Amino acid sequence: MPLNITQKLIQSHLVSGEMVPGTEIGLKIDQTLTQDATGTMVMLELEAMGLDRAKTEASAQYVDHNVIQVDNKNADDHLFLQSATRRFGLYYSRPGNGVSHPVHMQRLAKPGKTLLGSDSHTCANGCMGMLAMGAGGMDVALAIAGEPFYVKMPQVWGIKLTGKLPDWVSAKDVILELLRRHDVKGGVGKVIEYYGPGLDELSAMDRHVIANMGAELGATSTVFPSDQEIRRFLTEQGREDDWIELKADKGATYDLEEEINLSELEPLIAKPSSPGNVVPVSEVAGTPIYQSYIGSSANPGFRDFAIAAEIVKGKKVAAGVSFDINPTSRQMLTDLVKESHIASLLQAGARLHQAGCNGCIGMGQAPATGRNSLRTTPRNFPGRSGTQEDSVFLCSPETAAISALTGEITDPRTFEMTYPKVKEPKNPTIDDTLLDAPLPFEEAKKVALYKGPNVASIPAMDELPDQMEIPVLLKMGDNISTDEILAGGARVLPYRSNLPEISKFAFEIIDHTYYPRAMESVVKGGHAIVGGINYGQGSSREHAALAPRYLGLRVALVKDFARIHWQNLVNFGILPLTFKHQEDYEHLDQGDVLQLENVRTSIKQGNELTIRVKNKNLTIEVNHALSQRQVDVLLKGGMINWVKERQKRGSSKH
Amino acid sequence: MPLNITQKLIQSHLVSGEMVPGTEIGLKIDQTLTQDATGTMVMLELEAMGLDRAKTEASAQYVDHNVIQVDNKNADDHLFLQSATRRFGLYYSRPGNGVSHPVHMQRLAKPGKTLLGSDSHTCANGCMGMLAMGAGGMDVALAIAGEPFYVKMPQVWGIKLTGKLPDWVSAKDVILELLRRHDVKGGVGKVIEYYGPGLDELSAMDRHVIANMGAELGATSTVFPSDQEIRRFLTEQGREDDWIELKADKGATYDLEEEINLSELEPLIAKPSSPGNVVPVSEVAGTPIYQSYIGSSANPGFRDFAIAAEIVKGKKVAAGVSFDINPTSRQMLTDLVKESHIASLLQAGARLHQAGCNGCIGMGQAPATGRNSLRTTPRNFPGRSGTQEDSVFLCSPETAAISALTGEITDPRTFEMTYPKVKEPKNPTIDDTLLDAPLPFEEAKKVALYKGPNVASIPAMDELPDQMEIPVLLKMGDNISTDEILAGGARVLPYRSNLPEISKFAFEIIDHTYYPRAMESVVKGGHAIVGGINYGQGSSREHAALAPRYLGLRVALVKDFARIHWQNLVNFGILPLTFKHQEDYEHLDQGDVLQLENVRTSIKQGNELTIRVKNKNLTIEVNHALSQRQVDVLLKGGMINWVKERQKRGSSKH
Repeated sequence: MPLNITQKLIQSHLVSGEMVPGTEIGLKIDQTLTQDATGTMVMLELEAMGLDRAKTEASAQYVDHNVIQVDNKNADDHLFLQSATRRFGLYYSRPGNGVSHPVHMQRLAKPGKTLLGSDSHTCANGCMGMLAMGAGGMDVALAIAGEPFYVKMPQVWGIKLTGKLPDWVSAKDVILELLRRHDVKGGVGKVIEYYGPGLDELSAMDRHVIANMGAELGATSTVFPSDQEIRRFLTEQGREDDWIELKADKGATYDLEEEINLSELEPLIAKPSSPGNVVPVSEVAGTPIYQSYIGSSANPGFRDFAIAAEIVKGKKVAAGVSFDINPTSRQMLTDLVKESHIASLLQAGARLHQAGCNGCIGMGQAPATGRNSLRTTPRNFPGRSGTQEDSVFLCSPETAAISALTGEITDPRTFEMTYPKVKEPKNPTIDDTLLDAPLPFEEAKKVALYKGPNVASIPAMDELPDQMEIPVLLKMGDNISTDEILAGGARVLPYRSNLPEISKFAFEIIDHTYYPRAMESVVKGGHAIVGGINYGQGSSREHAALAPRYLGLRVALVKDFARIHWQNLVNFGILPLTFKHQEDYEHLDQGDVLQLENVRTSIKQGNELTIRVKNKNLTIEVNHALSQRQVDVLLKGGMINWVKERQKRGSSKH
Repeated sequence: MPLNITQKLIQSHLVSGEMVPGTEIGLKIDQTLTQDATGTMVMLELEAMGLDRAKTEASAQYVDHNVIQVDNKNADDHLFLQSATRRFGLYYSRPGNGVSHPVHMQRLAKPGKTLLGSDSHTCANGCMGMLAMGAGGMDVALAIAGEPFYVKMPQVWGIKLTGKLPDWVSAKDVILELLRRHDVKGGVGKVIEYYGPGLDELSAMDRHVIANMGAELGATSTVFPSDQEIRRFLTEQGREDDWIELKADKGATYDLEEEINLSELEPLIAKPSSPGNVVPVSEVAGTPIYQSYIGSSANPGFRDFAIAAEIVKGKKVAAGVSFDINPTSRQMLTDLVKESHIASLLQAGARLHQAGCNGCIGMGQAPATGRNSLRTTPRNFPGRSGTQEDSVFLCSPETAAISALTGEITDPRTFEMTYPKVKEPKNPTIDDTLLDAPLPFEEAKKVALYKGPNVASIPAMDELPDQMEIPVLLKMGDNISTDEILAGGARVLPYRSNLPEISKFAFEIIDHTYYPRAMESVVKGGHAIVGGINYGQGSSREHAALAPRYLGLRVALVKDFARIHWQNLVNFGILPLTFKHQEDYEHLDQGDVLQLENVRTSIKQGNELTIRVKNKNLTIEVNHALSQRQVDVLLKGGMINWVKERQKRGSSKH
């Protein structure tokens, strides 16, 4: 059977399951990527697992999110990450080296490989003919430890590109067009695969732009072929040997088919406050702007900055416009400096920031209240810029640069100017000064993890007890989100590498007495919580399971679970149970004491258990929906223990 | 009588007093400089004064401190500052244009003029043959409104420079030598005036380095002659017409005399955690470093970055060293880019930050806990870097660059390398794109102040009442500092342009019930506080008077006052009284009610008052030490009202 590229990538990495859309498959992971905001916990998980050495072909830890350093926390975390990468045999991309996605693409990405990353834009490297997917931190930790990644087999959505981009229209407009057509949930459960003659018009970095914002469609990933353009790109990076050709077989089909005629595209813009809120730029032309912001992993290429530089060269930004330039990698910044583009930008009035994620994730460059900000970044969710009442538009570098000159949103085609041609540098810089390669194993073994005052190890977690007599510490209603279980934001995030500290915020929004009561429960055998439907919806953050577990949560008994949080509960050894008869929810109260007998045997043997409510002389029937593998994880007290044992077995083979 | 330069500058600007060291003189101020962290309150004071137009020759508002923008507050403040400068006829240096001191020097400084700035390093512009002094915000607001600046006539400390700097020794080592000899209080009450043949070795920017850190000696200011080098500098800036010669008269003398033989200097370094803690670099050579940081107004010149670039060119920074480059002005950054120095720095592994104060004032680039940071910045007070347990060394760019390569503190003379020569750019960039000139008056009059959600006007303040019956809300002990009256730090500082919000922190450290109790007092005629000796010591921050005044404080009755806070109390209309008999302090308690009669007449007629303690049938005698001008200010309810009236009288003359 002729296969498309996605199917080829999956087939060559399939370790369990079948390629039937919607069913679970297990995939071998070749490469991983972590960034600092999620990576510190991943490294702590590796430590807790007792990992000796990364088992992937290449795993890289990037420092790009927290590079402002207003106090010791960021800097201390960097030192911890550096020591962990040295210990476990990972690449370490130091602060200042740039954003993970373009740096990984330039220096490590390989066609035909799988990449799992603890960042939702990991899919950007799909531009290289890879299957690149974002995932939670524990999933990435497991991949580093050599475990497969489990995911539902996606549908493959073939998008045929035809035609040729008109002047003033670029890659960003292609992905904005797809968002215009399908909105932010249009890609859920799908891999978007591009093909067709229009590809010849798109450089590797252009494809990165398109693949990156596949995340905004909710897609599992985005895949491009590995063709002569990828060969050219790798050659330029001194890595021609890493190239293989990867194309869809002749006659390959797709689960869904669609076409984009590049010739028909026009400059597009996503209005506040959703990437799916796309209209032609002409529709909002004339809107005054406060800021024009160029950069981020959604427009990371030399071309993206150079075109802006060519546009503003010899001109001046409009009064009152903050023209923020956010280089994405130090290597590329060097070329932009050498080719005089940075000089052009500065002389037009640009503010040049350090290479990193910066404003794209609200770490600096926040706009003034209610003022319009034009950005080439991937997301404009309300408040993501750092300003609560923000008004962020997403567009191409062309639209952003022209608008910086006029001071209002401007369709670049209406500006009196010939569309500039960008000359790529003849010998682009290759510079791994700030990308430390993994240490040899013998040396790595001797490295001790460095933990500053803000880094705390994950404590050992015990097995699932066979008997429990535990109080219900919280009874909650329906649709409790992980934001309510453990808040995000600037107040809580700095403690992402410090479980004891971040746990103080657990359920704080729901009941601020939970923390002290839960802490008390720890020495008495733990506690349970009771919830309604859709328990644990929202963000995938694993701290929402890890922190309550640290505080003694052993059983979560609810009407039903949101999928990812359910998985996270299992990962951290919390028994997730549902009521067999939903009306039993009404019979339970905070303070009730639950008695569970023969738990270990029961969950292995079937999906039914009974719980006695000690203080009410009441018995209720409950279910679980765990696979045998998950039961095994739970019995061991969570994924860390489970993997630890496998690591031990693995190393005992040596 | 032959005069030195300081005396000439003072004589030509003297509006009151005599040139007798230690006595108060009033000086006409030609130029002012404000930065954003202090400038927002200055602008609010101008608004409250009802100023129509700045009366100085040139007043510039710089945005350089708060340029990170993690939420709306900084950006909203920038918009407010922009609107205020447009309204009052000031220059506005937009965020990204650079640090106030070098930008002012390049674009606005003029030999022979006086400059008052609400930043302690304002003295840096003394390098241009100006009398440049730092002061509190209200003093600068008054200067903008055309009022004289009152200061004690300084002693003039003549420092004769001879010889020639050896290789690897530069301007920073000159000022470090002076700090080594005299420590951080050695310059109190003095203007440091440099002269002698050694001057020929020092460029205008070298002199800036030396003048800047005169602040670290506690000096009132630093003065250099305006000679052919200043003419060259101004010509390069397209401002030759602004040059005048300014030299000491033949036979001029100094109150104190000293000599520095440049030939004998060696590379010096200030160890943690005081700029006065100076030793030869060789003494601490070999100490491992975590960070090497180049930039700040204490080493702001093209040369300072270029020499670092020449040193690291073609080499790589040591593993684990964060090599932070902090450009000081956009104009200079452009030249550093054009002359390939930025490329050299980047390729060696540098992190390039935006132009601004940044790490120098703890806004980013904070080092990891306990790790050694080498900086060319002016101050290494504990915690100023943003990291509580920091370890900051101050040194020259030469020492910082060489140490970045070796990974440990290194005497640059011991490194195998010929001392590089820096070539100044042939046609240095002149670029005022982000420096907005004052609007013409007719246009300025129409500008409305823009106030985002974080900017609140200073409310109107009433006159000093003639009768008062007010409770004592706090009784404090000795040595209460302004930090205890109103804290600094990241929690409080963002509200510097928001009096109602920042007032919530008043006396919080001493008694957190003060705020609600004080708020209640406002409608009942206010309240008093009682203190011991040295009340109001420490930082000069004017919010420590303004916030309590906002909360109804009318009388501060203490054993004695620290000088600057005493002045601030007067400026904001709080009656500062001292016990005639210190034992009366013992008779007063929190909650006592003080009755004051005929206050207005009494303070005009003499320096004695009596206070009845209503609830104790007790009478105590108190004193004030106000001049007639200060009495006048107090009667009107503070400086804002006082100036407002003068402004009105002034404009009624038109």
